[in-house]
Amino acid sequence: MKKFAVVLAGCGVYDGAEIHEATLSMYQIKKQGAEYELFAPDIEQHHVINHLTGDEMKEKRNVMVEAARIARGNLKPLADFNAQNFDAILFPGGFGVAKNLSSFAFDGPDCKVNPDTEKAIKAMHKAGKPIGALCISPVLVAKILGDVELTIGQDKDTAGAVEKMGANHKSTGHGEVVIDAKNNLYTTPCYMLDANIVEIGEGAENIVRAILKTLY
Amino acid sequence: MKKFAVVLAGCGVYDGAEIHEATLSMYQIKKQGAEYELFAPDIEQHHVINHLTGDEMKEKRNVMVEAARIARGNLKPLADFNAQNFDAILFPGGFGVAKNLSSFAFDGPDCKVNPDTEKAIKAMHKAGKPIGALCISPVLVAKILGDVELTIGQDKDTAGAVEKMGANHKSTGHGEVVIDAKNNLYTTPCYMLDANIVEIGEGAENIVRAILKTLY
Repeated sequence: MKKFAVVLAGCGVYDGAEIHEATLSMYQIKKQGAEYELFAPDIEQHHVINHLTGDEMKEKRNVMVEAARIARGNLKPLADFNAQNFDAILFPGGFGVAKNLSSFAFDGPDCKVNPDTEKAIKAMHKAGKPIGALCISPVLVAKILGDVELTIGQDKDTAGAVEKMGANHKSTGHGEVVIDAKNNLYTTPCYMLDANIVEIGEGAENIVRAILKTLY
Repeated sequence: MKKFAVVLAGCGVYDGAEIHEATLSMYQIKKQGAEYELFAPDIEQHHVINHLTGDEMKEKRNVMVEAARIARGNLKPLADFNAQNFDAILFPGGFGVAKNLSSFAFDGPDCKVNPDTEKAIKAMHKAGKPIGALCISPVLVAKILGDVELTIGQDKDTAGAVEKMGANHKSTGHGEVVIDAKNNLYTTPCYMLDANIVEIGEGAENIVRAILKTLY
């Protein structure tokens, strides 16, 4: 049975992992006959957003502790990730990717990537294993690998930023997956478009299918 | 288009709404051609659980503010729920149901139910409209309506507690839905059984289908 590592950036679209993208990715991995383990970096969140108002809250939360809400307690520190134990790695989206796993939300193309995240992506890339990235997560891969082909949907500013980091951006619609065969990289826009939850399900279904196709 | 109200008890299995059950319910409602609005009571959570360790955290969180993470900000106070505007109401599970929407986790059959929750269930029942409850949520209906037929899976203690509240308990396996046609009540066990995420998807799919079947 093929095994995915799924990396969560917290719990909640505005300061963590996008919950629908994370849940529907896990659902599709299992539904398509593979299995998964969940990971998150053991770091403090950049900040905490009240998801009702959009305001910053005067709180501190830990990315791994909050991601454990999506994982029902069953996840590991990303520092313990070992590429040898996995057939693929998948990054759901959410602002946590651009605030916790990297500083893309604040620094754009000049962002820094969380060291555990960078290490995991580099290890999978070096091993020639598939990397999947939903929504805003492709910015991580663009920053680390530079010359790759990917999609972040249709947003011109974000597309411009990933091109500044050396990537080749392809504009996509709901559920479409861009496959960079040379780098074994799979990307799909999800909530980077104005999407509903069924369209998120399509994106998750299609990216997992594309990855599994390359594994068999 | 038929419209569901989905009631969230927070965000996270141990102190709020179970995230997979909530997300996959929303996904199935939309996938099967209906629409939904999300609600949560504007109350403080009973407590906050570190989902990695299971320990209580010295924090205070609001049920509606945390539920907004699952809702991407788009939900309303349960106090504003009006049964006239909806064709069905659905309660995903999670300990939040037994800690925030009621005191069942602490008081068992002698529990109290949150007034907004009680009002919503009574209004839908009075209107003869379908009530769906996943996982532990059927305890709410047992407490409020008493003489109903339902399932909480196979756990003998919980089954005994709902029978003490006047309900007739049916033991069920993964994805099974108990239909109480007289009360227009639909229940399915989900994570009250030792389930994986695909089995949760089956439960959500089947309960939404059963409810929509009665609406057309």
